[in-house]
Amino acid sequence: MFSAAPVAGQRKWTIRVPASSANIGPGFDVLGLALTRYLTLEVSLSPCPEAESKVVLSYTGEGAKDAPTDPYKNLITRVALYVLLSHRLTFPAAAVNIVIDNQVPFGRGMGSSAAAVVAGVLLGDALGDVRLPQERVKDYALMVERHPDNVTAALCGGFTGSFLRMLEPSELAPSSIPLAEVLPAYPPNAGPPQPGDELPPQPPVNVGRHVRYGFSKEIGVVVVVPKFEVETAKARGALPDSYPRQDVVFNLQRLAVLTASLSTSPLDPNVIWEAMRDKVHQPQREGLIPGLSKIVNTMTPSTHPGLLGICLSGAGPTILALVSNEGATKPADGKATPQMEAVGEAIKDIWAQDGIEVEWLALDVDDEGAVLREHK
Amino acid sequence: MFSAAPVAGQRKWTIRVPASSANIGPGFDVLGLALTRYLTLEVSLSPCPEAESKVVLSYTGEGAKDAPTDPYKNLITRVALYVLLSHRLTFPAAAVNIVIDNQVPFGRGMGSSAAAVVAGVLLGDALGDVRLPQERVKDYALMVERHPDNVTAALCGGFTGSFLRMLEPSELAPSSIPLAEVLPAYPPNAGPPQPGDELPPQPPVNVGRHVRYGFSKEIGVVVVVPKFEVETAKARGALPDSYPRQDVVFNLQRLAVLTASLSTSPLDPNVIWEAMRDKVHQPQREGLIPGLSKIVNTMTPSTHPGLLGICLSGAGPTILALVSNEGATKPADGKATPQMEAVGEAIKDIWAQDGIEVEWLALDVDDEGAVLREHK
Repeated sequence: MFSAAPVAGQRKWTIRVPASSANIGPGFDVLGLALTRYLTLEVSLSPCPEAESKVVLSYTGEGAKDAPTDPYKNLITRVALYVLLSHRLTFPAAAVNIVIDNQVPFGRGMGSSAAAVVAGVLLGDALGDVRLPQERVKDYALMVERHPDNVTAALCGGFTGSFLRMLEPSELAPSSIPLAEVLPAYPPNAGPPQPGDELPPQPPVNVGRHVRYGFSKEIGVVVVVPKFEVETAKARGALPDSYPRQDVVFNLQRLAVLTASLSTSPLDPNVIWEAMRDKVHQPQREGLIPGLSKIVNTMTPSTHPGLLGICLSGAGPTILALVSNEGATKPADGKATPQMEAVGEAIKDIWAQDGIEVEWLALDVDDEGAVLREHK
Repeated sequence: MFSAAPVAGQRKWTIRVPASSANIGPGFDVLGLALTRYLTLEVSLSPCPEAESKVVLSYTGEGAKDAPTDPYKNLITRVALYVLLSHRLTFPAAAVNIVIDNQVPFGRGMGSSAAAVVAGVLLGDALGDVRLPQERVKDYALMVERHPDNVTAALCGGFTGSFLRMLEPSELAPSSIPLAEVLPAYPPNAGPPQPGDELPPQPPVNVGRHVRYGFSKEIGVVVVVPKFEVETAKARGALPDSYPRQDVVFNLQRLAVLTASLSTSPLDPNVIWEAMRDKVHQPQREGLIPGLSKIVNTMTPSTHPGLLGICLSGAGPTILALVSNEGATKPADGKATPQMEAVGEAIKDIWAQDGIEVEWLALDVDDEGAVLREHK
């Protein structure tokens, strides 16, 4: 029913996927911003005398100790296997060495799982020599990670908005595997696919659509990562099932203005700050994230010159602040302007009052998105 | 407490404000599109020997028979008086002749009241020689008409998104007049202000903020106006107080993509059609507008080549369809390309099945917005 991916001699690839921040205030489940922190895979494939599949993973960086290295348990290789299986392939019958360096904090609202899923699709693409176009990479990634905000930013780079199309039942046929189980929870005995297993379906075409907005080069991104995790499931559990009409209109109005206002010149801090306010997910998550309300409501362009807007990154607990560096020399990655430093330190101080330790980072927006490069 | 606006000889102005379509699918209370149909005022002021205020209104065009011509009852002159009074002025002690030509259908979702309110602010500005900048005209208009979607488009032209700022109680002081009663319902004995009357407050600054999106020159606008009215209050009464989370996300996602996708080249009908779908106001208004569901759900880019998207205009009953004229000669105002004609006729046919007569118009997007021009 399926065969090992072909092996044509020794090959090497680099896969690099950026971190991302989702929501950006009013854009709950909609907006994404790719950031200059990366999940990087160095992949090498060598024929081996036994002609058996030997996939070996090793990790450095964030979460290196906790990440599973069994290729049938690790999220990245499992997604790669999904791409392979849906092309009637398995891992190549060769030695596959995957060295993973992860600079994206886990469980902090920085898009670590979207980065892993996109990296997994590209890994499957490389190992199976499938050569998926970017739109198909997105389709695969969205079948696993049903939130297009982080996936789109991680894949395409920049500042993005996206929707998930309503799929017709006919688009999911002929497979009997329900969409929610494309990548089912691992059974304890996860292992190579067996001949009787059902193949996962190829994704429908254009599962999600996206646009990319302009993003002024003058904006610096300050990301403040507290030293505690918030589970996405718990963060989502804090949300109500329904919203009052005035809150819906509040977010729709601000979202519409925000997407166009980060590329206008000159940047208007008062418009951007107000346009980054939210009533759909941040107030509901204040119980999970001490200090959040104080940070997003009391730090303004008046109290912190240069501050443009401030919000939860994804489901948190990371805070994202946009800072205008107008007139200042554009900072290199990892270097903060004085305005960015003031904002980062102010957030750190507020959290310190609750006894929470944080690390703040001066980042840029990643323009490239996910990259798969073969070394010849 | 107030005095008549000064009269410095004979003066003449033209005031012209475009019709507008609001909502545009997912952008409920957010998006506006200015259209090439106009409310036009020819205003002349002449000193008169009695030095008394004589404001005479006359109407031609849509609703000419029903519009009140008493300057203390007519919406346009009443808004003008609000602007004058908040500058401690009343109508000039002179003969003021106002000839109004209205090409914007009333009660059809074409922004007739926003056009009247904006025209009224500009009329007050002219008569009092106040010289409000555009942002202040918007503030005044938004104090009367609390929906920024039509107001912004009518005032600024083009394709706009806007939010209403949450006003602090202190911003409405020192007046004791509540915001909702800036322009109170007319008492039966409406007449000139009396010395003891409280002056209306000047609006806070930056009541609403807006952005203007690109709008491809290749897009033609088809507006289909059925011959029945839907009261805005009734259309709003059809909306629920709260919305399920998935419907909120549905609209947020589509709004984010729509605003950027009408200026991309080439236009992608499949993205735009899906991005113009709505779950917040259109399904709820199907009971008020027979045929609506059939029109917005069954007419697609596949069934009608060139169709980009289709939605209710404002609170309806007018339907707005965007049509790609790529490759076709750009139609002059009032002239339809074959694609536009096919879409207009198809909507007409669906409504004909319910016995509803319609008029469809081929329009362009107005780029200029509201104009106040003095004739020297």
